Amino acid sequence: MKPIHYLLVLLFLIRAGAQSSPNVQQDRLEKTILELGTYGRDAQGQPNRVAFSDGDLEGRTYVMGLMREAGLEVRIDPAGNIIGTREGTDNGLKPIGLGSHIDMVPRGGNYDGCVGSLGAIEVVRTLQDAGIQTRHPLEVIIFSNEEGGVMGSRAMAGALKPEALGVVNSTGYSMGEGIMRLGGDTTRLAGAIRSKGSFTAFLELHIEQGGILDREGEDIGVVEGIVGLRWWDVTIRGMANHAGTTPMDLRRDALLAAARFIQAVNEEALAMEGKQVATVGRISALPGAPNVIPGEVVLSLEIRDLSDAVIDRLYEKIHSRAELIGKESGTSFSFLPLDTTGKPALTDPRIQKAVATAAGRLGLSHRQMQSGAGHDAQDMALITPVGMIFVPSKGGISHSPEEYTSPEDMANGANVLLRTLLQLDAEWD
Amino acid sequence: MKPIHYLLVLLFLIRAGAQSSPNVQQDRLEKTILELGTYGRDAQGQPNRVAFSDGDLEGRTYVMGLMREAGLEVRIDPAGNIIGTREGTDNGLKPIGLGSHIDMVPRGGNYDGCVGSLGAIEVVRTLQDAGIQTRHPLEVIIFSNEEGGVMGSRAMAGALKPEALGVVNSTGYSMGEGIMRLGGDTTRLAGAIRSKGSFTAFLELHIEQGGILDREGEDIGVVEGIVGLRWWDVTIRGMANHAGTTPMDLRRDALLAAARFIQAVNEEALAMEGKQVATVGRISALPGAPNVIPGEVVLSLEIRDLSDAVIDRLYEKIHSRAELIGKESGTSFSFLPLDTTGKPALTDPRIQKAVATAAGRLGLSHRQMQSGAGHDAQDMALITPVGMIFVPSKGGISHSPEEYTSPEDMANGANVLLRTLLQLDAEWD
Repeated sequence: MKPIHYLLVLLFLIRAGAQSSPNVQQDRLEKTILELGTYGRDAQGQPNRVAFSDGDLEGRTYVMGLMREAGLEVRIDPAGNIIGTREGTDNGLKPIGLGSHIDMVPRGGNYDGCVGSLGAIEVVRTLQDAGIQTRHPLEVIIFSNEEGGVMGSRAMAGALKPEALGVVNSTGYSMGEGIMRLGGDTTRLAGAIRSKGSFTAFLELHIEQGGILDREGEDIGVVEGIVGLRWWDVTIRGMANHAGTTPMDLRRDALLAAARFIQAVNEEALAMEGKQVATVGRISALPGAPNVIPGEVVLSLEIRDLSDAVIDRLYEKIHSRAELIGKESGTSFSFLPLDTTGKPALTDPRIQKAVATAAGRLGLSHRQMQSGAGHDAQDMALITPVGMIFVPSKGGISHSPEEYTSPEDMANGANVLLRTLLQLDAEWD
Repeated sequence: MKPIHYLLVLLFLIRAGAQSSPNVQQDRLEKTILELGTYGRDAQGQPNRVAFSDGDLEGRTYVMGLMREAGLEVRIDPAGNIIGTREGTDNGLKPIGLGSHIDMVPRGGNYDGCVGSLGAIEVVRTLQDAGIQTRHPLEVIIFSNEEGGVMGSRAMAGALKPEALGVVNSTGYSMGEGIMRLGGDTTRLAGAIRSKGSFTAFLELHIEQGGILDREGEDIGVVEGIVGLRWWDVTIRGMANHAGTTPMDLRRDALLAAARFIQAVNEEALAMEGKQVATVGRISALPGAPNVIPGEVVLSLEIRDLSDAVIDRLYEKIHSRAELIGKESGTSFSFLPLDTTGKPALTDPRIQKAVATAAGRLGLSHRQMQSGAGHDAQDMALITPVGMIFVPSKGGISHSPEEYTSPEDMANGANVLLRTLLQLDAEWD
């Protein structure tokens, strides 16, 4: 054969591959996204489907209806997760999970979580329409209260700490009260735990919150991993004093030391190679009066990276800079670690490859990328291999009513999810 | 005469001068300071005689009793100032005023304001005991709500703005409600105004809040002037974004820009010659979550100096630095002037000289100094020549239960006040 013939055969094979699985219905997916968005509005008409709110409950009812229409058997686990199961041809196999969440931050948007949730349901409806039964059982999971600390997925992975149940969100309900409102049961939370190895894999479709796909004009993000996250409360103690009577050279100004520290955090994060990020997002200065030199400052330090070692190294550098600033300014720094459970989670390389293959067969451009935001897949990675598929979010905006992902992009993501699922179903046991 | 004889004559004259006026009773002064300190305590037993509180009312009742014992005719003016008058031998002369305030900041101390208030009353008791009647009428003034914006003295000088009456302090009472509680009358506040020239002079004894006298081991501060003060709210706008998904080099972090600004404020204030001070005491960052890059920061900027021109110059330098930081960081700075009424107030050079002479005759060390803190004398300077006498405060501590001035230092200050008063009474018309 001449080279041109090889090429023609290749194009035929790619096309044949693309058509070996049905496609999701873009219009149907878009319609469910828009309908879900009608549930949960605040007094100003802004989306407000915060976990445990009336809007959340209404949204969940709507979604459970969709799941039943897709032929799923729906139940609510003790942590309030909605689980829809579909039998496989070989019920000796562990299920493949797919899903995301539908709760949102206050004044959030209708795409974060929802695209992956409704995308997973659309995938099952497409299988149903095409009369395809997978070898593996399937579980579509709509995790409860993702935005309030990945509650549902953490409970499923057995990593939810009991003290978390007391945390109250903007609805005024504690997590414990909220779980009861969702139809869960805090008296038997252990019943929500799924042991390691009880899934074959878990797949999550999600909007990309960093804006890279949108900026670069690419269709699909193949997620390599979800960054780990560590938080500290940093307390800086100086000496409060009268702003009028204390000469500049006799001050031990905790806010001035904090200012140097904030700059040092930025410099150190920029100085290291890699994609690590470090942020000071919260600050308070005491006593907090314009006419008093601050004697104490408390601020937050957050570091994220795909590698725990990188987080450690950056923290050490920042910590050393703080000690130096303290010495130079007559102040003291103390670091209180707040939450060390946000471990980096790598996705399974075989699933990454399957996602990339699916995208390629659909003629979609794609790139490897990391997730800077936390996701339910992060906790699911504690018990099963996970994969994540990103689709563009306009301007990288998320956690805002301005969130937007086009119907085409949503359908592209759902089609990649469907093909990835089918490849895993065919090749994994 | 030989030099030794000149010296002896000189010593005799100094001693005669010192004895030409009686001395205050140190024990009596100390006793009243301690007794006043028993009024107004919070639940923890800490001093809490905030203006308009029950403790403030009880303290005022106690002080009015002391004033009556000293032979003063006591009234409360419409602004809640306590005024005790004593006739002079020449009632054609305008009165000499002396006094300070007895209200305090929350968890303040028992010396700031009280030393000058009880010192003034002790001076009058000493005159009474010695049977001395001055040529000028005397007015002992205990100003109302000094700590909440020099309310009483500002009202007396006709400089209290009507909108101030709505300001609520830590007691929960607005200034307007507070004035009524003190026995004043907001419906006829104009009746509290004293026109320019209605006093011969005003003298205020006060603890020195900068710690210079204490550190240098000196007895008396001869105050040259009270620094002017200007406040701004500075708003820095960047772009709030996800702390996990936004790369370091794509951020427009308002708090990072604020950190650079805080450092610039310090650098510029230190770079200029002189005693000017600049302070950032209050800061808030929005949205204020550890996992969100701050999109907006509001902070306070305060500049003080004895010269308005110096304040202007320093502000211009700081403003230029802010524009530069804004350009470099993709943020914007805006400055909102908050209170421009704290004009620098110079004390009368003749009174400065009288204070220094009195201290010298008492064998007390003394130095010229400025007041970095605001005082009632600052507003009184709008209507009459003023003088201020400082005594040491241990460690320069003020606005704290740790405040302390020794009985000797209090008596030294009151004796200097008495002698200054007598010199003005003798020499001024």
